[in-house]
Amino acid sequence: MRIDNLQYANWSPKVFRQLRAGEIDAVHVTIAYHENFRETVLNFEKWNRWFELYPDLIMPGYHAKDIDVARKLNKTAIFFGFQNPSPIEDDIGLVEIVHRLGARFMQLTYNNQTLLASGCYEREDSGITRMGKQVIKEMNRVGLVIDMSHSGDRSTIDAADLSERPIAITHANPYSWHPALRNKHDRVIEAVTSNGGMIGFSLYPHHLKGKSNCTLESFCQMIADSANKFGVDKIGIGSDLCQDQPDSVVEWMRVGRWSKEVDYGEGSADLPGFPQQPSWFQDSRDFVNIENGLSAVGMHSEEIDKIMGMNWYNFYSMNFTPSADSENA
Amino acid sequence: MRIDNLQYANWSPKVFRQLRAGEIDAVHVTIAYHENFRETVLNFEKWNRWFELYPDLIMPGYHAKDIDVARKLNKTAIFFGFQNPSPIEDDIGLVEIVHRLGARFMQLTYNNQTLLASGCYEREDSGITRMGKQVIKEMNRVGLVIDMSHSGDRSTIDAADLSERPIAITHANPYSWHPALRNKHDRVIEAVTSNGGMIGFSLYPHHLKGKSNCTLESFCQMIADSANKFGVDKIGIGSDLCQDQPDSVVEWMRVGRWSKEVDYGEGSADLPGFPQQPSWFQDSRDFVNIENGLSAVGMHSEEIDKIMGMNWYNFYSMNFTPSADSENA
Repeated sequence: MRIDNLQYANWSPKVFRQLRAGEIDAVHVTIAYHENFRETVLNFEKWNRWFELYPDLIMPGYHAKDIDVARKLNKTAIFFGFQNPSPIEDDIGLVEIVHRLGARFMQLTYNNQTLLASGCYEREDSGITRMGKQVIKEMNRVGLVIDMSHSGDRSTIDAADLSERPIAITHANPYSWHPALRNKHDRVIEAVTSNGGMIGFSLYPHHLKGKSNCTLESFCQMIADSANKFGVDKIGIGSDLCQDQPDSVVEWMRVGRWSKEVDYGEGSADLPGFPQQPSWFQDSRDFVNIENGLSAVGMHSEEIDKIMGMNWYNFYSMNFTPSADSENA
Repeated sequence: MRIDNLQYANWSPKVFRQLRAGEIDAVHVTIAYHENFRETVLNFEKWNRWFELYPDLIMPGYHAKDIDVARKLNKTAIFFGFQNPSPIEDDIGLVEIVHRLGARFMQLTYNNQTLLASGCYEREDSGITRMGKQVIKEMNRVGLVIDMSHSGDRSTIDAADLSERPIAITHANPYSWHPALRNKHDRVIEAVTSNGGMIGFSLYPHHLKGKSNCTLESFCQMIADSANKFGVDKIGIGSDLCQDQPDSVVEWMRVGRWSKEVDYGEGSADLPGFPQQPSWFQDSRDFVNIENGLSAVGMHSEEIDKIMGMNWYNFYSMNFTPSADSENA
């Protein structure tokens, strides 16, 4: 089983075919960076149209069992998530609405301070806010998973502690391997995984040791080390693959509507656009390279199966249903 | 001249007539607590209708000179403000739009953390956020005054320092007089007034020493003491009069859409609604009581004139126009 727990491609039939060629059974797809509720609904509509147009390649995923169906039918199940709480605006009632529409992950912040928590780019992190505490409770209730990939350390640890259900870092790597602002200190990963949560390892070059020149061996050794540190059941892939996106999209991701000045985020004035993917991970067809790489650093096939998909499958099966029904999920 | 720099009445012809009976030349009216942009536009529309229906009583105020016109025509000039940045949502471009529509004050927070700053009810205050810094610059540019009445101490001091133009605490009292969470420590008032800003004293009972039983003398002595501490040119009235409002409105003010649980704010389970106004300040006709009270505690008529209106008039004349034109305002 192969699950990629974060992609943000410029979706097209070509990319859908690559998902099938790569035998990706499920993918968690970002459909909001700074979109408000209405704009997010437009993105759900866009996907409804794609499901209608390409029924042989993709299908909507609402629960883990949809992945079983997808595997049987040779399709990829698409699960939706938001990288910012902008779709719920200032309205806690929208948590249940977006879950009903299909959202399964929501970041409490995207780099900046939000109504809920602090982002990793703020000077200081004061933890989960008053509204944040209420929203975490509501997300727990309906089965919308808290994602802290772009949050500050303190907010992430707070969220892991406050949440009554496991949370996730869907796409990031250990800071100890590559000290990027977006990567996570061991104590932060520990707070998430020790509460039943998971981390998905990212293949976005700014998160990789050596960036675009990162070696497959280094990436896979980092995964093997993480399995030892945090547990082989607590880790997966969240590639953060931003395939075929024009650079205008990375500007939207970084600046949204919050600034009139350019903010380069993880880039710089010299390198303002999307960075080059490493040669061994260009698109979804390259998942097999990671599997081979994990084998080369000494991991067993059962361990590799867990990391490549089974762990996310189990996580999905426990965390996408309302809390009262979760035992029957 | 009489200016009340904060009212949130349940507006009606009766209340407009009381403004005239009280000889209020201008009033800063709240038109947003938690309203988003579109909802705020509806509130502008509501006022357009009132201006059309009651042209003998009220007129829109955009600049200080509109107060001169209002005085000549025996009307009250209505200036608009927001108690939360919710009307600009996550969009810095809306700062100029709401100013064009007539907004002249905007709080960066209403009790809770926002995208811009921390509110006075949050456990911690991490100061002005990344977006907050950008929005302060834009508010300075267009002439939209930063109001920190419901903000945390650190955020308020940060805003006073970061802003290149004077900021305001439109409605609050000194914490040293009455230690309410919403009242302001001397060092916070000092940060605002020493940078050219002003504070408007509130007559909302939860902000008063003795609450509904506060004496006129105590209130006026607090003003006289504040004149000595912060300067007689830096103080005015912002009554926070919430006349004729049903208790459902105070619930909206406190809870908005951010929580499914009741939050009593400055009230309590025993006293969930609006508190009783003190006997000597029931509505706009009672401004004369404050003038008499200030005289009784020994203030001179020129000082009283400043506090009752001239200071806000001068503040308006300097701070409602775009920064490049401010010298010609």
